[in-house]
Amino acid sequence: MKIVHTADWHLGKILNGKSLLEDQEYILKQFIEEMKEEQPEVIVIAGDLYDTSYPNKDAVKLLEQTIAELNLELNIPLIITNGNHDGKARLNYGAEWFSKSNLHIRTSLEDINNPIIINGVNFYTLPFATLAEIKDFLNDDEIQTYQQGITQLLNIITENLNSNEINILIGHLTVQGGIRSDSEREITIGTVEEVNERHFDNFDRVLLGHLHHPFSINSEYIHYSGSLLQYSFSEVNQSKGYRIINIEDNEVKGYFKKLEPKRELEIVTGDYEDVVQERLLVKNKDNYMQFRLSHMSHVTDPMSILKNIFPNTLSLINNEMNEQFNQFDVDNTMHQKSDFEIINEFYRYVTDQSLSDNQSKMITNVLEEIDKGEY
Amino acid sequence: MKIVHTADWHLGKILNGKSLLEDQEYILKQFIEEMKEEQPEVIVIAGDLYDTSYPNKDAVKLLEQTIAELNLELNIPLIITNGNHDGKARLNYGAEWFSKSNLHIRTSLEDINNPIIINGVNFYTLPFATLAEIKDFLNDDEIQTYQQGITQLLNIITENLNSNEINILIGHLTVQGGIRSDSEREITIGTVEEVNERHFDNFDRVLLGHLHHPFSINSEYIHYSGSLLQYSFSEVNQSKGYRIINIEDNEVKGYFKKLEPKRELEIVTGDYEDVVQERLLVKNKDNYMQFRLSHMSHVTDPMSILKNIFPNTLSLINNEMNEQFNQFDVDNTMHQKSDFEIINEFYRYVTDQSLSDNQSKMITNVLEEIDKGEY
Repeated sequence: MKIVHTADWHLGKILNGKSLLEDQEYILKQFIEEMKEEQPEVIVIAGDLYDTSYPNKDAVKLLEQTIAELNLELNIPLIITNGNHDGKARLNYGAEWFSKSNLHIRTSLEDINNPIIINGVNFYTLPFATLAEIKDFLNDDEIQTYQQGITQLLNIITENLNSNEINILIGHLTVQGGIRSDSEREITIGTVEEVNERHFDNFDRVLLGHLHHPFSINSEYIHYSGSLLQYSFSEVNQSKGYRIINIEDNEVKGYFKKLEPKRELEIVTGDYEDVVQERLLVKNKDNYMQFRLSHMSHVTDPMSILKNIFPNTLSLINNEMNEQFNQFDVDNTMHQKSDFEIINEFYRYVTDQSLSDNQSKMITNVLEEIDKGEY
Repeated sequence: MKIVHTADWHLGKILNGKSLLEDQEYILKQFIEEMKEEQPEVIVIAGDLYDTSYPNKDAVKLLEQTIAELNLELNIPLIITNGNHDGKARLNYGAEWFSKSNLHIRTSLEDINNPIIINGVNFYTLPFATLAEIKDFLNDDEIQTYQQGITQLLNIITENLNSNEINILIGHLTVQGGIRSDSEREITIGTVEEVNERHFDNFDRVLLGHLHHPFSINSEYIHYSGSLLQYSFSEVNQSKGYRIINIEDNEVKGYFKKLEPKRELEIVTGDYEDVVQERLLVKNKDNYMQFRLSHMSHVTDPMSILKNIFPNTLSLINNEMNEQFNQFDVDNTMHQKSDFEIINEFYRYVTDQSLSDNQSKMITNVLEEIDKGEY
């Protein structure tokens, strides 16, 4: 049996004001072409299909067209669960009809104990849910951490697991030790949200979404497919694609397959003049660029000059300032300082001035309100 | 063959700040119960399923549950077209999967020539489209009026019509002479939007949405089902329900069936004291009330007093003022007056004062901007 594992499509994503829909359309076309070749017996999409609960109509159309092609044209069964970016109601709309064509959309904890069985393999789904939703579902107010909640949900699943069969879990969460990037929105604020690897050891394979790096975790049986595209500058140079899992004679093997995006994210560090004179080599002038440049303080509007040469420039950082930040970053006495002191020092680094009385008062007020839990 | 014809559900409708979703849920449950009895061979929903292009998730859920029950539980084929209130992309989402279960959603003019055939009867769909969309579809810039556009679309359909078969048209538009109410949003602004009855005479039956009165038009073969509920106070005392069309031995017969809403709209006219002392008979204290009362100028907050007695009071009109308006309404010289004169006289009627210089200037400015097309 051949399974394709993908996740974190984030359709409708806007990066630094730029819609990535065209890039998403491009890469999904490529994905569809490869599926024609691969002919998997099921495609698993482990959450964050959309970037927001209120995707615009072009993002909705792109998802609809893509899954229609995979499911109705190529007749490939699909299993889809929601991530923390998806709106459940939106993603789940029409699911009753879809399931008749083997397009299974799972967004409810009610179904965790009810696997989708494809060619004798059990696919259990653990859709993303907030801690509050998990407590509510388990009717247990004593659960304090996300890990406790997930552990209880996994207990419900594993209780009835037949270990003679192949059991695959599909989820959207962070496994302890996983490599993070900047574009994964926190799942819960203020609670430990990571789940220890050992909780999953009753499964033959765990196919996850949430972390964007395709090799986020070093595990024999837990995999992140990684995101469809690079979605933050912390993901520069990361390959993006999907994973193929082969099950033969009860043995499960997997590997990663790279897709070629229309544009990548690229960070260029150097001297401003070298860049605008094109003396610095870049990978692709059409890439989405972040420039980190020095010696540019004399230029009035460097961004428009850069955009004339590199049309998809998304970000420009003054490297001299940035070096000051870096210096600031490694201040080892940081953890001994109060929040106010940190803000004040930061302000002084950036502006060469101390906070005014009025500014100090405003910041103190905000910090007090945060302390009181008003934010 | 038994056809059920309904339209103008306007799910998510908010009337004077009050969401009608509970009433819509109530009436749709009743509708579903009656469908269990009636067992029609098809249900036609002729547009305006939602009240807006961005229905909230409860409205979306109610539509999904209702059509799931009708289509998947009761196994009744459905034909749905969009009205001027629906967002096409939203309504059409999932249509490719739905059609496999005989749930046909038609929102595109591309399909006008491609009937849905159920038990030998041809159902042609003419989904709502704006004049601009029609011109674009026909690739004809010379079309000036809505009627011209619709006529050309109908010509495309009737060209290939087999008059030996039974041909039914489903649409969402205004037929000339149809009775209007206040809750039908104009289809086009500034162009004649009515279509003459004779353009439809190649069809055995024309099942329409848009006008909310179930007997909007006096025709042998053109029917409005009317809306699901009373949606404006101009619809008070209108029966609401659905229509049954029976086709036997090539003969088509139809009749209207009333549904019983949880609450109706009710207008109570009289003296304020009579109402609050409950000396005036009302149909149902829980109805959505509009009071048109006299002798209430001495009361500080009549609305809250009325709401204590009639919890679903939505509207309160000072009848003394209203009489002045009525008097104003029948001013036969109105059409000879300028916009500014009309506004000025209206202001004088209401306040007993003329517009100040400053007010006059502001209104003149606005009227000039409207003239210039800036609004």
